[in-house]
Amino acid sequence: MLDVVAVGNALVDVLASSTDDQVEALGLIKGTMALVDRDRAAAVYEVMGDTMEASGGSAANTVAGVAALGGRCAYIGRVADDLLGQSFLHDIRALGVAFDPPVVAEGEDAVTGHCLVLVTEDAQRTMVTHLGVAAELGPADLNDDHLIAAQVLYLEGYLWEQPPAKAAMRAAIDRAHETDGSVALSLSDPFCVQHHREEFLELLDGHVDLLFANEEEIVALVGARDFDAAAEAVADTGVLAALTRGSQGCLVVAPGGLVTVPAAPVGRVVDTTGAGDLFAAGFLYGITHGHGPELSGRLGALCAAEVISHVGARPLADLRKLAVAAGLLEA
Amino acid sequence: MLDVVAVGNALVDVLASSTDDQVEALGLIKGTMALVDRDRAAAVYEVMGDTMEASGGSAANTVAGVAALGGRCAYIGRVADDLLGQSFLHDIRALGVAFDPPVVAEGEDAVTGHCLVLVTEDAQRTMVTHLGVAAELGPADLNDDHLIAAQVLYLEGYLWEQPPAKAAMRAAIDRAHETDGSVALSLSDPFCVQHHREEFLELLDGHVDLLFANEEEIVALVGARDFDAAAEAVADTGVLAALTRGSQGCLVVAPGGLVTVPAAPVGRVVDTTGAGDLFAAGFLYGITHGHGPELSGRLGALCAAEVISHVGARPLADLRKLAVAAGLLEA
Repeated sequence: MLDVVAVGNALVDVLASSTDDQVEALGLIKGTMALVDRDRAAAVYEVMGDTMEASGGSAANTVAGVAALGGRCAYIGRVADDLLGQSFLHDIRALGVAFDPPVVAEGEDAVTGHCLVLVTEDAQRTMVTHLGVAAELGPADLNDDHLIAAQVLYLEGYLWEQPPAKAAMRAAIDRAHETDGSVALSLSDPFCVQHHREEFLELLDGHVDLLFANEEEIVALVGARDFDAAAEAVADTGVLAALTRGSQGCLVVAPGGLVTVPAAPVGRVVDTTGAGDLFAAGFLYGITHGHGPELSGRLGALCAAEVISHVGARPLADLRKLAVAAGLLEA
Repeated sequence: MLDVVAVGNALVDVLASSTDDQVEALGLIKGTMALVDRDRAAAVYEVMGDTMEASGGSAANTVAGVAALGGRCAYIGRVADDLLGQSFLHDIRALGVAFDPPVVAEGEDAVTGHCLVLVTEDAQRTMVTHLGVAAELGPADLNDDHLIAAQVLYLEGYLWEQPPAKAAMRAAIDRAHETDGSVALSLSDPFCVQHHREEFLELLDGHVDLLFANEEEIVALVGARDFDAAAEAVADTGVLAALTRGSQGCLVVAPGGLVTVPAAPVGRVVDTTGAGDLFAAGFLYGITHGHGPELSGRLGALCAAEVISHVGARPLADLRKLAVAAGLLEA
């Protein structure tokens, strides 16, 4: 039995401090993610400052967080047999997440996907991703045992950028529902929502049971004039939705009504990379362990607060211990 | 003209949160550095948790810090033509440190040195280093232009573990002195001091002008009963010495007498990796810019405080800006 199986783009993050001027000079839009080819990624890397490398990937960060809280997880994604791929594999397994068998692409040109993250002084992150072999993720890469065993199938919206991945997602959704699992989707990025709005809306009609989105993404998705109107529109779909609002905390749109959850305290916000991924981790741990929307939202807020207090998209502190200390989970 | 040229083991750090039990189970001595072969390093990596990779190397961290303060620096070390080596090269050059021509070893078995860093909950770090191609650093790798151009030649004590590196250090010391440069040595590690005590003592007799050591290292070097006695013994040598004492700040043994400098305030100590390296950075920037022992010590303390406030051995914040804000340097 698994709590969560996640499917995503397996990426290694390459993080560096940056400035607004540098982000602008590179023609990037602050706070968003751009998909680029290998040459463009190399050119951006060239002008970045001293970097730090750490395993990332949106859905992988989320299962890393669920596992850190004590959840049982599996991951499905594609890496190459290079140093970045070996590092990704090491890290996800070190967290106790099953990645079995790992999907490893061979060949000289096969490179593991990487995400260049420019962290500006306001702690915002701007991302430039070269997917590498992650771009070839397809239906054949799905691990059926994991799909059957998991309570929740978690999908990152980023996957909708790639046709073979989209086919894999649709197959995975059907398989999860056939076997009484539920399906969670993260909208990932406002541009991603703009590109795939019709499809995402169609997914909310019976294919997705739980939706994660931030304010900008949900407003873009439902085409509402503001956040409150967007929340109302989401409530009409009947889908459980966790809508994050940065320092304003989150709003959970649940069958029983709307639940507002404040943000958890954080000393200093250093790097918002992974905030949404880790919110989803806490929330997923909560709902897969019988907790209601409020406690699940608080767990999400706690995990997000930890990850934004340092550089990098994976937790550094012991999340389980933090949750126990905060009175959210029992020791 | 350069402020500092550093010679050191070029390493990439691989950092993970760890526990006292894990450090003990691996047969490691907390707070120290052990040199190991490739297989042993692979075995330690295997049991480490989710890791973060970042360029390191003691002397390289120091010039990274001097450069971040605005100093002109060069680095001499050996990397392989692999992903870690490319990353090391990128990072040091991104900081504006000259590494030219870089010493790159080719060949299938050539691997860039790496340092596995286990960070325990008390923020202490325990290190396991596989030197890879750094082990072959020798006199031929010295860049004579940089040795001639620099005010200070900075050497890490770790190099004394390798006979060819030792020969290179002696040649570099002679060259620096021939061209009116001064020579700084960091003692690096208490075990390193035990192994090479006689040679280090001999270096203090006319070969080294500036010594960096922490409490444990200096007591081991002079064979004193306590820190005060060690400081007295150092004063007798006439060498300028900056002796660090963790949260107690540092004592500068200067020709004019002893100067006590308090530690700089730090919110939460997260990871002490790089504390000594960055103290040396601030101190070196100070003395190469005409500042006295007290202001140089304060700059050292400021840089050390920044680096222990986060994971990793290189500064994340803009050190120059911090020093200006603290009133230590002019804008």
